[in-house]
Amino acid sequence: MARADIAIIGSGPAGISAAITAKVRNKNILLFGSGGLSEKLRKAHGIRNYPGLPDISGADLADAFQEHLDALEIPMLQEQVTNIYAMGDYFAIQTSAGMYEASTVILGAGVVQGKPLPGEDEYLGRGVSYCATCDANFYKDGTVAVLGYNDEAVSETEFLASVCKKVYYIPGKGNPEFEAENIEVVHERPKAVLGALKVNALQTEQREIPVDGVFILKDAISPDKLVPGLEIDGAHVVVNLQMETNLPGFFACGDVAGKPYQYVKAAGQGNIAALSAVAYLAEHKVAKN
Amino acid sequence: MARADIAIIGSGPAGISAAITAKVRNKNILLFGSGGLSEKLRKAHGIRNYPGLPDISGADLADAFQEHLDALEIPMLQEQVTNIYAMGDYFAIQTSAGMYEASTVILGAGVVQGKPLPGEDEYLGRGVSYCATCDANFYKDGTVAVLGYNDEAVSETEFLASVCKKVYYIPGKGNPEFEAENIEVVHERPKAVLGALKVNALQTEQREIPVDGVFILKDAISPDKLVPGLEIDGAHVVVNLQMETNLPGFFACGDVAGKPYQYVKAAGQGNIAALSAVAYLAEHKVAKN
Repeated sequence: MARADIAIIGSGPAGISAAITAKVRNKNILLFGSGGLSEKLRKAHGIRNYPGLPDISGADLADAFQEHLDALEIPMLQEQVTNIYAMGDYFAIQTSAGMYEASTVILGAGVVQGKPLPGEDEYLGRGVSYCATCDANFYKDGTVAVLGYNDEAVSETEFLASVCKKVYYIPGKGNPEFEAENIEVVHERPKAVLGALKVNALQTEQREIPVDGVFILKDAISPDKLVPGLEIDGAHVVVNLQMETNLPGFFACGDVAGKPYQYVKAAGQGNIAALSAVAYLAEHKVAKN
Repeated sequence: MARADIAIIGSGPAGISAAITAKVRNKNILLFGSGGLSEKLRKAHGIRNYPGLPDISGADLADAFQEHLDALEIPMLQEQVTNIYAMGDYFAIQTSAGMYEASTVILGAGVVQGKPLPGEDEYLGRGVSYCATCDANFYKDGTVAVLGYNDEAVSETEFLASVCKKVYYIPGKGNPEFEAENIEVVHERPKAVLGALKVNALQTEQREIPVDGVFILKDAISPDKLVPGLEIDGAHVVVNLQMETNLPGFFACGDVAGKPYQYVKAAGQGNIAALSAVAYLAEHKVAKN
């Protein structure tokens, strides 16, 4: 696959705005997001301060964004980005479906709500994974637990069940049913990931469940886990007024770049990030594919 | 007049967005702008990257902003702000029509295009003025020149002619005709303001015209001349990510706060500035009128 000019991670107002401006500037872009664009946006009842669209519902604003993408013929890759690596003069982007390359990256993936589980950070890469598609084969014929917080969690769990001996599924949303007999739905609140050198159990409020791995499937991954070396401050990526981060060619915008968490602020920062990426590409004379 | 919570200077996307968010947050606001909202915006042919409103004309976007103001019942004061003074716990705002007070100020007045005339900065307040209404009486029975760059220049010149003995009018836009016999329209390019302790002449490409004062009537005044003590960098006010300036309680957004000059970027920064002003008011426990 040809290397893209700009990879944009996230389909909320920040990512959408970045994609629109990058496309208007004739850049070759990859937009990674979800089908509904942004669950948080869609659930907003009434938005009164998006200038030009008075008192619009979140669903209607999301639809207006989708129409804008359609009008500019911007496709969206509905894949979860699990890792981004700075390779020097480009970035390697690992998703649930494959690997991509881009000269620059704009992160507009929203902010992670809530703290990690005890042990989650410690065992990340040693039994804790955020991507079933990527890591299922490490647990062939093993036992894993899935904490399912996003829409893809059910299908990823079914995939895990086709590889692993046993899968415990702890639903973070909804109440899914599975046909596979080796999936056991457990309605217990997860408390911690336990282990020694590697994960050996998931602790719930009721008990310890012995497992070889814990898959935590959520839409937003903490930016420092997504991008090794990225400077963060708490839940936010450190940016300047041009939305530049400490990594050259890597930009952030929207909620992940700091408060206030507001739709038009996110859209404005997405626009800035896109133009900063355009300027970076020009400065570095990156050949257009 | 009661002191406002927030005075917003400018009716482009930055000022409009600030006004909308401040009003949604139930603040008592003063919005200073022009009837058409923004001449620059109105003249934009097609805007393709304001998310949610694909391929909208500048005039239609300005109309959408006006409808948003109307929906929230936000009135606009069509007065030019000529000076803002930091008074400690509030700001005094001088306009072409009077004086106002506000606990905080958001400047979204756009960026001044072009350099000042030689002598303009030097003689500001010593013969150079940006406001006929404010300063006409200093030139009673005197001779003045008007460099007319904005829509109000014609009526301000007529007012000057009712006070001064002689007015030279150098049109910066249009080709107005005047009835008053003491107004002489001069089609010469202004080159410099000349003087000793005070202004004594306007130099054009053709000649020196002896005058007591020079009125330079344009829509945007360089921010450091508008607000004594405000830190600037070239044509821009220095801001941080929260749109704070070096003056506590004074915020800037949009083009005046730096590039890129983009509509949705300006709207996003206006939103941030409004929420920063709201936070400042809460921190300083400024009583709501």
